[in-house]
Amino acid sequence: MTDVATNMRLKLPIICFILEIILIILFGVLVQYNEETDAKEWHKKNHSDYENDFYYRYPSFQDVHVMIFIGFGFLMTFLQRYGFSSVGFNFLIAAFSLQWATLMQGFFHGMHGGKIHIGVESMINADFCTGSVLISFGAVLGKTSPVQLLVMALFEVTLFAVNEFILLTLLGTRDAGGSMTIHTFGAYFGLMVTRILYRPNLDKSKHRNSSVYHSDLFAMIGTIYLWMFWPSFNSAITAHGDDQHRTAMNTYYSLAACTLSTYGMSALTAHDGKLDMVHIQNAALAGGVAAGTAGEMMLTPYGSMIVGFLAGIISVLGFKYLSPILEEKLKIQDTCGVHNLHGMPGILGAIVGAVTAAVATADVYGDGMKDVFPDVASGKVDASYQGGIQAASLAVTLGIALLGGLIVGFILKLPVFGAPSDTICYEDNIYWEVSLTVINIQFNIYGE
Amino acid sequence: MTDVATNMRLKLPIICFILEIILIILFGVLVQYNEETDAKEWHKKNHSDYENDFYYRYPSFQDVHVMIFIGFGFLMTFLQRYGFSSVGFNFLIAAFSLQWATLMQGFFHGMHGGKIHIGVESMINADFCTGSVLISFGAVLGKTSPVQLLVMALFEVTLFAVNEFILLTLLGTRDAGGSMTIHTFGAYFGLMVTRILYRPNLDKSKHRNSSVYHSDLFAMIGTIYLWMFWPSFNSAITAHGDDQHRTAMNTYYSLAACTLSTYGMSALTAHDGKLDMVHIQNAALAGGVAAGTAGEMMLTPYGSMIVGFLAGIISVLGFKYLSPILEEKLKIQDTCGVHNLHGMPGILGAIVGAVTAAVATADVYGDGMKDVFPDVASGKVDASYQGGIQAASLAVTLGIALLGGLIVGFILKLPVFGAPSDTICYEDNIYWEVSLTVINIQFNIYGE
Amino acid sequence: MTDVATNMRLKLPIICFILEIILIILFGVLVQYNEETDAKEWHKKNHSDYENDFYYRYPSFQDVHVMIFIGFGFLMTFLQRYGFSSVGFNFLIAAFSLQWATLMQGFFHGMHGGKIHIGVESMINADFCTGSVLISFGAVLGKTSPVQLLVMALFEVTLFAVNEFILLTLLGTRDAGGSMTIHTFGAYFGLMVTRILYRPNLDKSKHRNSSVYHSDLFAMIGTIYLWMFWPSFNSAITAHGDDQHRTAMNTYYSLAACTLSTYGMSALTAHDGKLDMVHIQNAALAGGVAAGTAGEMMLTPYGSMIVGFLAGIISVLGFKYLSPILEEKLKIQDTCGVHNLHGMPGILGAIVGAVTAAVATADVYGDGMKDVFPDVASGKVDASYQGGIQAASLAVTLGIALLGGLIVGFILKLPVFGAPSDTICYEDNIYWEVSLTVINIQFNIYGE
Repeated sequence: MTDVATNMRLKLPIICFILEIILIILFGVLVQYNEETDAKEWHKKNHSDYENDFYYRYPSFQDVHVMIFIGFGFLMTFLQRYGFSSVGFNFLIAAFSLQWATLMQGFFHGMHGGKIHIGVESMINADFCTGSVLISFGAVLGKTSPVQLLVMALFEVTLFAVNEFILLTLLGTRDAGGSMTIHTFGAYFGLMVTRILYRPNLDKSKHRNSSVYHSDLFAMIGTIYLWMFWPSFNSAITAHGDDQHRTAMNTYYSLAACTLSTYGMSALTAHDGKLDMVHIQNAALAGGVAAGTAGEMMLTPYGSMIVGFLAGIISVLGFKYLSPILEEKLKIQDTCGVHNLHGMPGILGAIVGAVTAAVATADVYGDGMKDVFPDVASGKVDASYQGGIQAASLAVTLGIALLGGLIVGFILKLPVFGAPSDTICYEDNIYWEVSLTVINIQFNIYGE
Repeated sequence: MTDVATNMRLKLPIICFILEIILIILFGVLVQYNEETDAKEWHKKNHSDYENDFYYRYPSFQDVHVMIFIGFGFLMTFLQRYGFSSVGFNFLIAAFSLQWATLMQGFFHGMHGGKIHIGVESMINADFCTGSVLISFGAVLGKTSPVQLLVMALFEVTLFAVNEFILLTLLGTRDAGGSMTIHTFGAYFGLMVTRILYRPNLDKSKHRNSSVYHSDLFAMIGTIYLWMFWPSFNSAITAHGDDQHRTAMNTYYSLAACTLSTYGMSALTAHDGKLDMVHIQNAALAGGVAAGTAGEMMLTPYGSMIVGFLAGIISVLGFKYLSPILEEKLKIQDTCGVHNLHGMPGILGAIVGAVTAAVATADVYGDGMKDVFPDVASGKVDASYQGGIQAASLAVTLGIALLGGLIVGFILKLPVFGAPSDTICYEDNIYWEVSLTVINIQFNIYGE
Repeated sequence: MTDVATNMRLKLPIICFILEIILIILFGVLVQYNEETDAKEWHKKNHSDYENDFYYRYPSFQDVHVMIFIGFGFLMTFLQRYGFSSVGFNFLIAAFSLQWATLMQGFFHGMHGGKIHIGVESMINADFCTGSVLISFGAVLGKTSPVQLLVMALFEVTLFAVNEFILLTLLGTRDAGGSMTIHTFGAYFGLMVTRILYRPNLDKSKHRNSSVYHSDLFAMIGTIYLWMFWPSFNSAITAHGDDQHRTAMNTYYSLAACTLSTYGMSALTAHDGKLDMVHIQNAALAGGVAAGTAGEMMLTPYGSMIVGFLAGIISVLGFKYLSPILEEKLKIQDTCGVHNLHGMPGILGAIVGAVTAAVATADVYGDGMKDVFPDVASGKVDASYQGGIQAASLAVTLGIALLGGLIVGFILKLPVFGAPSDTICYEDNIYWEVSLTVINIQFNIYGE
């Protein structure tokens, strides 16, 4: 099952070593400890060690970290013969992306006197950006080599940082949990990439593009971790105090409501009323995506539940009815259905955020307005204008994601990157040593 | 394997949608952000954002959350053909229960001017109540439809809140980790339900009521997470400072001692000295259950270890000798053996708590008495009276659990809820799409 | 598959009960709550409950706890027929070791007026010591009975505490993440034990000393958890404030760089360019080991990345080229390759720590010097002398580990401990009830 094109003996080491050496050099030139991580700077000021932001961000960071490496990694192990690649390539591109994101995000909005200052907040942001790359990975899962994925990550992280800079810094958009910057961006970027990489003969690998019993259980590890820690994700970089507390709670109730609508819709749309693991693994998470923008706002608990409830419905309907259409009519082969989990719920989240911002009043927010909508609190803009900015930000995000995905998709078509042929997609054995024992088992199962 | 009775096409969507819509309406009418999550209220006061309770409860909350969704969910995947249902129904009923518990617990002991105020502490309490429902789920595992489980959760959460109100508010009982309110209640409620739902012909599904190699490994994920995070569970809602710190540490040593006695007893009670996965997966956790009441008290580290040591012994003996008797003589078909993990260790924990309370002295507790035994510190009762209250609380809990389980058991017998027939218990394929591949594998294995 | 020698019916209960009863007695005589966990002592002082160290150490503790029980436990489930023992014996010996370590570490450096005072910091230290035992377990995995493992743990914990006392207390060595005290010690102790326990006929069990598809996925759960939480491990007991923050961040970047070099080297050293799961599961973690000593120092982010990058390269080369030599020439049968993950990277970490210490200047550390190098800050020694101490500490650690492993290896050879014979190594069925179903499957697979 090895041929010259997909042989990674030189390609993968070359790209890994070159990228890491460039990273090390750029870190050496550009990156410094910030005031909270530098021994000298921290001790210059008169404060308690307990005031270090480490204690107020690091638990959230670790929850996000688990979502990135276990959550995304295991969610994608649902394929019967692609578990090594799912969790393994997820591991590789995430480890690269978080380093590259530190530089790109620092370059666009973290420079202090020509240096990028880093600490736990930049680590969270780097993990966030990585999440976006992993969403795109879900769209192309099983059809790309690790070299292609690293190249995709290289460009996507850069474009992510540009889009994030435009939204958060230039426009003053609020998007703490990244409905737009992370989910919408990652989904539509990935969908455009997979569109450009369209494989007309992919049905030759169709028998491997499905789950087996145990692979679905491994995937549930990913699902449950994403679900549990999404409150930490959405609240990880909001303002301290009530903001972080409220964001976590809104997300908690949005996800709970989403789970009930997902189960209901999954049974309702099946001809025999049986639940579909694909829906449970994915759509039950849409409530977290959809609460990504408005979660920090005064959305109210029942408002959060309505958002989650709708997100679950939309997501299951997308898996059931829209994905087949996208594949047949628009030639978008979306392996994990990221359009249903991140795309549409991301847009829903952006809209909910715009509406919630537009109706914000001083009566509801009081002095807390300055944390949630600083531009409104300072009188720079009024609430309805903020709502307009939020809506415009969705359009900007979609534009950059689609255009970026288009260009990067064509770059990834270069044959040198070692993509698998149409007959051996969704197969670990191309890129991994897989013990013979397993091949024999598979033989027996299929009766080949 | 689908028949009309168990077809969920309409039943599950109807109950999910009705329940969620009722929840949303009740949340809209009754629930508000508390002072720590409301933007306006939080900023009215003069305090640091770092004083928000989020930072002192949320890490514990997330550990509890992992226990509820990963811990309970995966612990029950030990059955060979019931992994989807174990983790999937656990997910569904937990997502419902935590919302309903917010209302019920708020109604009974969280009303402020006609409104329920919520924040991280109510989220922990909601997860705790959910845990009780999941314990009962363990007793009926494999023999109930998801609709039955939602109906059971609806009633059990309500009764849990009533019992909790009687104990914590009316009687002034101390039960931070819920040996009584969570474990004893959940276990005996579930045991009574499964007694009422007794299936005389369950041996027709006997061949599926056992584990296979990989399913036992999945179950160990649940076990280990429950074991690791139990210190967070027992300490999640104790008073801040020494109380939380001490409770976590007592539980840590109780669990460690319990693990050694579990391994010893498991080998001792096997005719060939081989360890039994059922014991390791369950009895090693009994030390956490048994430290649920006294964990916050000055139990001392070695006292905690004695409690854990005894809990492990009792639990293994229960699995080995008592469970078969319960099934044959009392017709209690307890799939997960919750009587051994939650029932008896819960009672042990309640007794240890009563004794530890009764011997509490000002000399040992000093000014810390007001956090552990506020009624004793204020002079309202003396220590031996507090011990008596603790013992009486166990009786109240058992009474409400058994009576509640009796009534709810009969409700669940209504045929409309779609329970599986005796021949297809412990089988995912009734309620879930399961890929054909797996069925073929199973064919080969059994030589059918 | 049961014979008299390996029958655990009496041996395991006897050792478990005796050890636990001794532990309980010694805890009763020697161990007390410290000021932060004692109700009376804590309330004597005038401070906020939020200042309790619980809030600044416990989240790190729980991350470390996950690494010990899930990380180490599942990492070792890669063997096809040894999953129960890997996670189960890991569980048993860790539960024992953390109790015994509380006593030994308390005895050597935690006595206050004849009593050992315990709290969250001693819990972290106990888990650290346990980690060292589990590293040694990796070297002998599949070839030892649970009784042997408990005996090994008993002695190793004791020697660990002696070595730790010499380094941290007598010499003033800095080793927050334990490159020397934990990793180097555990690895070389275990390697010497497995050398003494050399089995010339181990190839009779060779067919079981490998992975199958699903066992490699279970092992990845262990790997990813170790990888994610290593920043918490290295920073768990450093000084509060910038130190903890910086250590976590240095480790984060070291691991990310290590992952890229591991993937590159794994492809480069395979004749067909295919990635090897053994490398990914292990070598990608070497960056955490190698940052164990210098992680708290002003290593700089790019310095951390260089260390991680080198650690990954060394570790893969070790697996590929050194391990076979160690086995053939030196008769060291190192099941998990702990020499490559903990041994060499631990030495690298020690050297990096010595060099980083030797070049420390007041200009870089400012007033933070007192937290990182208290002896340098106080003028007791200068930086280069501190560097020398660090280097000498590595030699001491290697000496105690090798000598200790030698002695303990001979003790473990006593036939009474029930080691498996050469033909049934790496096999759960000796010590665990394993359902017949699985044996049938295995039959089919091997065509036996």
